[in-house]
Amino acid sequence: MSPEQTPAAGHGPIVPSPQSAAVLWPAAGRVSAGMWAQRRATNADASIPEGPGRLEEAGNLANFRAAAQTDTAPTAFTGDFQFQDSDVYKWLEAAAWQLADTPAPALAAETEKIIAQIRPAQRPDGYLQTYYQLGGGTPWSELGWGHELYCAGHLIQAAIAHYRATGGTELLDVAVKFADHIAAAFGPCAAVDGVCGHPQIETALIELYRTTGQQRYLDLARYFLDRRGQGTLTAGADRGHDRDPGPEFWQDHLPIRQADEVVGHAVRQLYLLAGAADLAIETGDSELTAKLQDLWQDMAGTKTSLTGGVGARYDWEAFGDPYELPADRSYNETCAAIASVHFSWRMALLTGQTRYSDLIERTLYNGFLSGVGLDGRHWLYVNPLHRRAHAHERPGDQTATRTEWFRCACCPPNAMRLLASLPHYFATHSSEGFQLHQYATGIYTSGDFTVRVATRYPWESRITATIDQAPPGVTSFSLRIPAWCDGFQARLNDTSVDATAPDGWLTVTRAFSSGDTLVLDLDMPVRFTRPHHRVDALRGMRALERGPLVYCLEAVDQPAGVDLEEIVIDPTSPATVTGAPNLLGGVNTLTVHGRCQRPDDSWWPYRTEAQAELLQENVPLTAVPYGVWGNRGSGAMRVWLPEQTPDPA
Amino acid sequence: MSPEQTPAAGHGPIVPSPQSAAVLWPAAGRVSAGMWAQRRATNADASIPEGPGRLEEAGNLANFRAAAQTDTAPTAFTGDFQFQDSDVYKWLEAAAWQLADTPAPALAAETEKIIAQIRPAQRPDGYLQTYYQLGGGTPWSELGWGHELYCAGHLIQAAIAHYRATGGTELLDVAVKFADHIAAAFGPCAAVDGVCGHPQIETALIELYRTTGQQRYLDLARYFLDRRGQGTLTAGADRGHDRDPGPEFWQDHLPIRQADEVVGHAVRQLYLLAGAADLAIETGDSELTAKLQDLWQDMAGTKTSLTGGVGARYDWEAFGDPYELPADRSYNETCAAIASVHFSWRMALLTGQTRYSDLIERTLYNGFLSGVGLDGRHWLYVNPLHRRAHAHERPGDQTATRTEWFRCACCPPNAMRLLASLPHYFATHSSEGFQLHQYATGIYTSGDFTVRVATRYPWESRITATIDQAPPGVTSFSLRIPAWCDGFQARLNDTSVDATAPDGWLTVTRAFSSGDTLVLDLDMPVRFTRPHHRVDALRGMRALERGPLVYCLEAVDQPAGVDLEEIVIDPTSPATVTGAPNLLGGVNTLTVHGRCQRPDDSWWPYRTEAQAELLQENVPLTAVPYGVWGNRGSGAMRVWLPEQTPDPA
Repeated sequence: MSPEQTPAAGHGPIVPSPQSAAVLWPAAGRVSAGMWAQRRATNADASIPEGPGRLEEAGNLANFRAAAQTDTAPTAFTGDFQFQDSDVYKWLEAAAWQLADTPAPALAAETEKIIAQIRPAQRPDGYLQTYYQLGGGTPWSELGWGHELYCAGHLIQAAIAHYRATGGTELLDVAVKFADHIAAAFGPCAAVDGVCGHPQIETALIELYRTTGQQRYLDLARYFLDRRGQGTLTAGADRGHDRDPGPEFWQDHLPIRQADEVVGHAVRQLYLLAGAADLAIETGDSELTAKLQDLWQDMAGTKTSLTGGVGARYDWEAFGDPYELPADRSYNETCAAIASVHFSWRMALLTGQTRYSDLIERTLYNGFLSGVGLDGRHWLYVNPLHRRAHAHERPGDQTATRTEWFRCACCPPNAMRLLASLPHYFATHSSEGFQLHQYATGIYTSGDFTVRVATRYPWESRITATIDQAPPGVTSFSLRIPAWCDGFQARLNDTSVDATAPDGWLTVTRAFSSGDTLVLDLDMPVRFTRPHHRVDALRGMRALERGPLVYCLEAVDQPAGVDLEEIVIDPTSPATVTGAPNLLGGVNTLTVHGRCQRPDDSWWPYRTEAQAELLQENVPLTAVPYGVWGNRGSGAMRVWLPEQTPDPA
Repeated sequence: MSPEQTPAAGHGPIVPSPQSAAVLWPAAGRVSAGMWAQRRATNADASIPEGPGRLEEAGNLANFRAAAQTDTAPTAFTGDFQFQDSDVYKWLEAAAWQLADTPAPALAAETEKIIAQIRPAQRPDGYLQTYYQLGGGTPWSELGWGHELYCAGHLIQAAIAHYRATGGTELLDVAVKFADHIAAAFGPCAAVDGVCGHPQIETALIELYRTTGQQRYLDLARYFLDRRGQGTLTAGADRGHDRDPGPEFWQDHLPIRQADEVVGHAVRQLYLLAGAADLAIETGDSELTAKLQDLWQDMAGTKTSLTGGVGARYDWEAFGDPYELPADRSYNETCAAIASVHFSWRMALLTGQTRYSDLIERTLYNGFLSGVGLDGRHWLYVNPLHRRAHAHERPGDQTATRTEWFRCACCPPNAMRLLASLPHYFATHSSEGFQLHQYATGIYTSGDFTVRVATRYPWESRITATIDQAPPGVTSFSLRIPAWCDGFQARLNDTSVDATAPDGWLTVTRAFSSGDTLVLDLDMPVRFTRPHHRVDALRGMRALERGPLVYCLEAVDQPAGVDLEEIVIDPTSPATVTGAPNLLGGVNTLTVHGRCQRPDDSWWPYRTEAQAELLQENVPLTAVPYGVWGNRGSGAMRVWLPEQTPDPA
């Protein structure tokens, strides 16, 4: 088998070129039932249709119309941020992936209408950023905060999505023209020799290379990746901002190849590393691949919340120090969870290792999904793992109360585009065979394989995968055994399969026939998970997990008199799983047991004697999946729960 | 006894009026030996003399000179902040208190020279803020960020210090003229009806009332205090800032009398409450007093680090939720520690209770002192309780590496003025007698008492207090028994005194004669202090304390191979105290024992099984006082140390 020679309909956002060094190639996927189908339907029916109204209301679309009116008096830019065009592009990308999945004439018309507003805004020379066109200053003069290349990247990604979804080049023409303008403007001997304060164009240019076959886009991406980390952004750091974010914020502190940990603004760091991973995929640069594996492990092993959320600090939306992973003040921007998926998926394609899809699964079900309200109309920008009753949060984007839209509206359309393209992250093929990474009812086509999956995952643990089509001869069919899973059983056509999964893959190798069915049953007990011993903020606590889901206690579900701030749980008491089809869109709840501690409001909270007298006998406590928390008001929530312990010393 | 009828030489920054409801009146104090004398000498010899150069370099003084040149072309304001004048005023206040303590002709001349630059900058109508005079905009139009009243407050405090120190009115004239301008400009029926985004003028106006006897300043302070919390600042919130700090930041979310917790920007909150406490002192408002007691308890009991540091969040320098007290990301601005002392001392004067001086002691020796480098030339703006090796900190003000000066230079001159006036916070008299709050070798005069103190506190636990002068007849002499102290012995002229301290005071009541000597010996073992059970970030950890001192481990002091991130301590192993006269200006170190855990760098840091294998037998670990940390480079430091525990469950 070999990958397709040209991108074609059915492709998702990332399609390594045929000559690339990718180990895996993404399947085209369609999800037809289950939890992801339900959330994707909400995305299609509520979130995406609401987008144009939001973008109109916030002025983003008006900016394009104004920028097109070159012959009239200048119009002021609307909005607070230089990067507002990108919200439109991200929405267009979401709409395109949605149209590729399910034709919808109204959405198609809306999409064309918005593209028709963008096209005339482009300057004849190809430049396009309404902020600078509407009086914001000189293009390319403020690479730190200007976000011009960042917006160009989102334009390119939207254009590719539109092209792959519809075959139309109305937006791709704009993107190519802008990309060519950038290629002429930037370079070691060009007018501008530097990088953007917000990485994003790197992945986009490489996907444009994959789409058009034009080497110059790969070269330009390589230039931006190699040029970074040389302090070019220092000078512009302070414009309009009264604090200096420092070079790590811009990802300009070190070249990628010299870095040994993920630092700075989480989204910037991970978009950059996703671009570097794309470069490694296309070039087969093994040294870069090894560096990216190390950086990914630094992220996953020391700087990721249990939910997959990343970027611990409110302060400049940054990664913290290793093991700085507070529950209450974990920032965990929704966009950073998305960026983590982008980076991890490319690492999966680059290496074929399962750990990347392990983290993707965890992130999707928990730290990403929590950002999207059940109704598709309310969002979280930050995704902490603990919200106290009557928490003090500033109004605006960084509240942990679901919000209809944000002044800095990066997250909602970013979530829309990931949900709309999500099935493309679920399966792959390789030169060896076919791999299922994620489990959702649907059909997945890759290489010469077509596989149908039926499952009630994540609520139930059985996955039934049926071969509809397979290439002739001996090949392999692999299912990822999740890292959280300690045991499983598998049968092929009612015959037991050896239940081993070296390197995380359960692989069956044989000549497959249409109708061959592999049934996988994962052991899925409730887990009382502990933190790493170096995570100070979580010491002495446990979290409840089942399968890929992290659970949390919400105050609204607990018996009267239970104060979540005073709770301790008993990890030796058995936990039960209860189906709750009418709760939060249909979930399983967990019941565990715990007690409350006696409140202590003495004037000084530190002392030598032991504290925390336990008040009552164990009471039942109900936990719901973290991914759906906060959909019933703004009460207290916590993932990490102190455990009853014998009094030490 | 009654307090002096008029402020006079020897008075410090806070002198309740004779007709006030104060329970205690501050003594005039002079500290002659010991730790505070040593640090105050550094303040006098290094910090204060360096100030004018720093203020010249940063442009603060040039702004005054430029504002005076009304007949020439306008000069641009120098500096990034509207409130830069206040740095000059705070330095002047520090210089004045220092001159009051120890005459110094060169410093006196420098002071007069700077005052001579300020006076001509004042507009004829009394207004004075160089930022707005040098083209920054319309005065009083930006109450949120403008800081005009804040600067006025610092001007008034500096002027009062200068007046009390020298008897001169050169600066007091300027302050009175500005105060009168403000009194005319502000009010329910005046041109401006609102409050300043940064409280500070409230305490200053009340001290001006105390200094001049003019009721209008007390009335104006009352207006500002009562007007606050009515949302007047919302409109100006966004100017020049791309994020909305919200009304809690400005202390404009609720009137003080309706608040039930301390929230928002810590310095703003505590300066405001200090002003409210001054109002309660002057008016005897028992309802306000009770509210302030509750708010203070909320702060001390739920939002204060072990070091006395307050304001847990980097995000807008704010108080966190109750018990949100991380070690690694505790912001604990030096100015907030100073503000806590301001608020607490007024509460001590208002109520006579010892808990306020308990917190002052803790804050001074730890969370405040850590902000001041041992050399008096390097400062910390933030004072976390844990700094990891190779910590990721943005450059600039918010690094936890000592810095010569800050772009936002609020902390250094604030620390200088507190150190210069510090002995005035050490003793009081009341209608009952004399009270010693803090223990430092020196002489304290209050009412008709003069008391000499000799002690090696905090290194040794004996305090010898000799009556030089006492009023005739039966009176009382009280010494604060610190809240950390579990037992003590006391002798008066070699006769045992009943070792009880109801309400925290050890009180001897009798007719005193000159030469009567009270010797107090405080039990001062090493303490392995535990956090309140609700502080998630500190669960399972202990801190080392001895007397008023919080200790920390610095990497530089530990045996080879000890990684502070992997350490667990054994609180059952005996701790020893060692005098180290040549270390860090002369300290006691503590030696405790602990082990390291096996490093675990697996790619996912959460699991169900127990972790953290212990590697070696107990090794000795050396702790130094937190107040002097970070004076030997920027290595790792931690106050809270995980303790060895039996594996739970």
